[in-house]
Order: sequence, then structure tokens, then C-alpha cells
Amino acid sequence: MDKLKETNNRFELVTCDEMSKIDKINDALYSGATQYLQKKGFLWVEVPTMTKVTGACENVDTLYALDHFGKQAYLAQTGQLFLEAKIPSHKKVWTTITSSRAEQAVDSRHLNQFMLLEFEHAGTLDELLNNIEGTIKSMINNALDLTHDELKSLGRNIDELRSFTLPFNRVTYTDAIQLLQKNGVEINWGDDFKHMHEMEIIKLLGNKPTFVTHFPKKIKFFNMRVNRENEDIVNSCDLLMPYAGESVGSAEREDDYNILVERLKDSNMYKILVKRGITLDTFKDYLDLIKNHRILHSGCGIGFNRVSQSVLGVNDIRITTNYPINAETLY
Amino acid sequence: MDKLKETNNRFELVTCDEMSKIDKINDALYSGATQYLQKKGFLWVEVPTMTKVTGACENVDTLYALDHFGKQAYLAQTGQLFLEAKIPSHKKVWTTITSSRAEQAVDSRHLNQFMLLEFEHAGTLDELLNNIEGTIKSMINNALDLTHDELKSLGRNIDELRSFTLPFNRVTYTDAIQLLQKNGVEINWGDDFKHMHEMEIIKLLGNKPTFVTHFPKKIKFFNMRVNRENEDIVNSCDLLMPYAGESVGSAEREDDYNILVERLKDSNMYKILVKRGITLDTFKDYLDLIKNHRILHSGCGIGFNRVSQSVLGVNDIRITTNYPINAETLY
Repeated sequence: MDKLKETNNRFELVTCDEMSKIDKINDALYSGATQYLQKKGFLWVEVPTMTKVTGACENVDTLYALDHFGKQAYLAQTGQLFLEAKIPSHKKVWTTITSSRAEQAVDSRHLNQFMLLEFEHAGTLDELLNNIEGTIKSMINNALDLTHDELKSLGRNIDELRSFTLPFNRVTYTDAIQLLQKNGVEINWGDDFKHMHEMEIIKLLGNKPTFVTHFPKKIKFFNMRVNRENEDIVNSCDLLMPYAGESVGSAEREDDYNILVERLKDSNMYKILVKRGITLDTFKDYLDLIKNHRILHSGCGIGFNRVSQSVLGVNDIRITTNYPINAETLY
Repeated sequence: MDKLKETNNRFELVTCDEMSKIDKINDALYSGATQYLQKKGFLWVEVPTMTKVTGACENVDTLYALDHFGKQAYLAQTGQLFLEAKIPSHKKVWTTITSSRAEQAVDSRHLNQFMLLEFEHAGTLDELLNNIEGTIKSMINNALDLTHDELKSLGRNIDELRSFTLPFNRVTYTDAIQLLQKNGVEINWGDDFKHMHEMEIIKLLGNKPTFVTHFPKKIKFFNMRVNRENEDIVNSCDLLMPYAGESVGSAEREDDYNILVERLKDSNMYKILVKRGITLDTFKDYLDLIKNHRILHSGCGIGFNRVSQSVLGVNDIRITTNYPINAETLY
């Protein structure tokens, strides 16, 4: 499959037998996810992909910018805030979005466009983790059911893949840091994980999908809900998958309007935006929504291609998709 | 529902009871479509939304442009060519894409971003029409089954909506022109339809979904297959829906490499692109694909919000979606 890392002559390349099998596996993963969400009563809604900075995830430096009739627009990285606005109506909603990230570095782990499967529901982080685990397992089980032969013929270790459907590990960020430190990794509480840290955590915890919860507030998105017992952390969770590392980002959303506004103002994102002349007014619609419809809710974004990479058991995300876009490619 | 034409304070507006019902109807339409395609053996595949001009539909003047690390990129209007590249592997493929059109005019019929449901299959225009009709009927029937109460409470005439699931009208472009002329409409063979023409055709043919086939070659996309018995027309089809007008564009794709290249060179699109310094090389991957894998195939793009508009029986497309984007709006 290594030839599928190549981005030249892609239209011809994707007619190969290996890509055809990967397509079938991806189709099974996709329908496995939607079946789970539909069974659980999630409603599909549309979200825009051309937005104000309200479509930013965390890193506003990786926003693609464009002109929209005199207005500064961006390609959305997430539809999260737009989904959250439907919580008062439906309690459970989902969407798929083509997430765009202007990543300059060309490597085996990043795509500049990828499919993000996002859902939000009224409820806590614990309930969210159950739904993320349910969705991922439904994806993997559907792939094992429908495309066992394709996986096998691509050389996938089926026993290993099957082990990814056992109960996921759950560990706090603080415990994960201690685990790394105990194993000789130089890292301090408050640091964000690098890819090598993620892979080390997975290895040390038995090569299984691993939830890492309760990250430091300072390194996370402004609307992740502050933990009420320890204000240094937020009720967030990243899912680390073997081969791929971080594959899902998720959190409870801050439901206290005053805390939310303070968190936004304190965020690095906001400080950068202010320098660009962007004011709190840009977020007014969202902030008002939280003020007027206080419902404890949580949500996530599942990086489809990261999950696919883990299921395929490959070391390069470009293999997972027909048209991998990075800073050097365009089709 | 008229208040839902309003694009200000949209985050608050979409919490209203009417939008909540529309969401449920849209969810039923969406799953009705995907159920049909999955049942018929279509495979889901990802397509990019940031592309070269290969993501253009017809009108390159309505492309949103952006910079992608020194390369001129555009927001895709269609994923058609990217789907076609998967025909050799799978014969039947589908996707959804957020289609972007830089429409300057703000009106009741256009959104600058909307969901396009696209599929391609090996086969003729006739087979394609059957699959389009099957998909649309599956959407409508699913909405009638799952959201009958919502439709009724929004004031929808259920009997009229049910009549949209009877066999669709099928008429050629030439016959449609004659029909209009006989009824006093000033229009000539070779003219493209305006919205008023589409609505008149639908009215004259009994207020039903109506396929109009075999348009003049000169007004259609370069890869629509030239009719072998009459070279002035292409094997194309637009589906006109009550309330919404044109809701689906479709065609057989030209499978003769030499004709395809000539058609591209002759197209208005290409003449505009040449002035911008774009050469045939931009389309090389696609042209080579057709040369190396000659398979008669056909495909379509279903404008989800147009179908939704017809199902809701409303006169404004902004009512069909939570975040309608036009030249004046951005969220």
C-alpha cells in the first residue's frame, strides 16, 4: 500500500486494487458510524463550511482565509458551535463536515482537508465517552463484518483490529503524565502531548484505544467546561487510537455564561483575534445562545481518516483517502 | 415560517419550533436518500472541497478563490470528476459535498453554500433517471413516513406532496420549448431556461416533478455526452421540482476521449480559463482517466435544499436550512 502515499497522478493511482479495498472499508466505517448515531436518536443537521472565525477549532493560525463579498471568511475547521445551537431543539445532533486546516508541514499524519464526523448531545462527559466509544466500535465492527476479506487481503492483523473493540482505556491527563514520567519521558504537567507522547501512552497501556480526560484548562478550547472541583482542568477528552494517535477531540461545553465569556477573553485564540481587529461581537450569537438556553451538553469531532488509519493499521494518513490534500497537493 | 427567511440573529431564530420540525423533515430526507443508494449498492467515497478549477460546475465566474500555499485554489462546486475517477473501481459511487457558489445576487432561490448529494454509475442516462427518481421518491416517502405530523403542522398539503411520488414526467428539451411556445412564452431553441420557464413547464405538465432531457450541447458542461444521433444535443437531464425549479443536474459523461478534449477546448468555461492562464494540463488527470478506462457512465448532483424546498412547499430556500449563506450573510 506504500504507493498510496504518493500524491502525483492520483486519478490513475486510485484505480488500483488496494485503494478499491480501502474505499470499501471506509464505506463500512462511515455507515457503521451513521447507523450508531441514528439508532441512538441523533438528528442529522447541515452546518456551513464558510464561516467567521466561529468555525475555528483552536489554532486560528491554520485557518484558510477567503473573501466573501467584502467580508473576511474562513474555511471551517469544525461545525461545533453551529451544532450546539441545535441542542435546545433536539438534544442530540450530528453532522459531517469537510474540515480544512492550513498546515504548512507535509507529513504522514496531517491532511489539510479531512472528513470530521461531529456530534453533540445534552449530557455529561461520561455519557459522551460512551457514545464516542459506541460510535467507534460500530465503525470497526461494521468494517470487520462487511470487509473482513478486504482487510485480510491488505495484510491487516485481524486479531489486533478485533482487540480495538474491547472496552477502551480511560485515563486522566494527570495520570497519563505521571505514567510517561515514570517511564523516563521528559514531560511536565501542563504540556500538550506531542505525537510521540500519544504513541507512548498507547503502548504503555496495551495498544488499545485510550481516552485521556481532563486536560489543563490553559491548553484547551475556550468553551470546554471548567471542572467544578479543580478549576485548573476542563472536562475534556481526547481519544488516542493505535497507529493514528489523537483521533477524536471532545468535551463538555461550558454552560455558565459568565465563566464562558471570561474563558473566551482569556484564551490565546481571542488574544490573537483582537490583534486582527476581531471583537467579542463575532461570538455574540453563540454567547447569547448559551445565556438564553442553559443546557449541560457535550460533543466531539471524530477525525474520520485517523480512525481509518488505525483500522487499516498503516503509518501514513494519505493512504486512507483518494485525494489527500497537503500544502504541496491540489487536484 | 416566513420569519425563517430572516438571516439576522440566526442562532436564536433556529431554536424556534418551526425550524425544529424542518430539521426533522430534512433528517428524514437525508436518510431516505442514503438508504436508497446503499440498497442499490452505491459505495460512499470522500471528495475534496478545495480544488483546482476541476471543482467547477459550469460557471467559473461563481468560484470562490483562495490561496493554498502559493497555489490558486477554489471551493468546489461539485465533486463530479473526483467521483468519476472511482467508476473503474466500483461502478456505483456517491458522496455529499458542501457546494459553494459565489452568487452576488441575494434572492429566494440561491444559497452560496448548500449540500449537494452526488452519485455516478456505469450506465446510460435512462438508468440514471431511474436512480434519480428512486432517490427522490425514497426521500419524500421517508419524510411522509417519519415526519407526517411535522409536515401537517407546518401547513403542508399532504395530498400534493404525495402526488410528487407518482411517476415523474419525462420530456425532452425540444418538446419543452415547443410546449412553452404554444402557450405564448417567448423562447427559442438554444436558450437556457430561466426560473419562470421552469415553473411554467411544471405548471403546464400537471404540477409534478419533471425531467427535461437532451439539452443543447452549447449550453451544457463539457463532459456531458454528445448524442450520437443528433450532435446538437447532449444526453443530459435536469429535474424540475414544484416550488423549487431545477433541483437536479445530470448527464451521461462523454466516454470518447477525442470528443471530450474537443468539447473542453470549445467550451466557454475553457475560453475563460485560458484568459486566466489555465491550460489543458489542469484537466490532464481527468482526461487521461477517460482515455485509459473507457466506461460509459452517468451521474448527477441533487441539490438537497431545492428538494427540501419542494417537500416543504415553500417559496424561499432560506427556510430549508439553519444557516443560509448568501452574499450578505456569514455566521
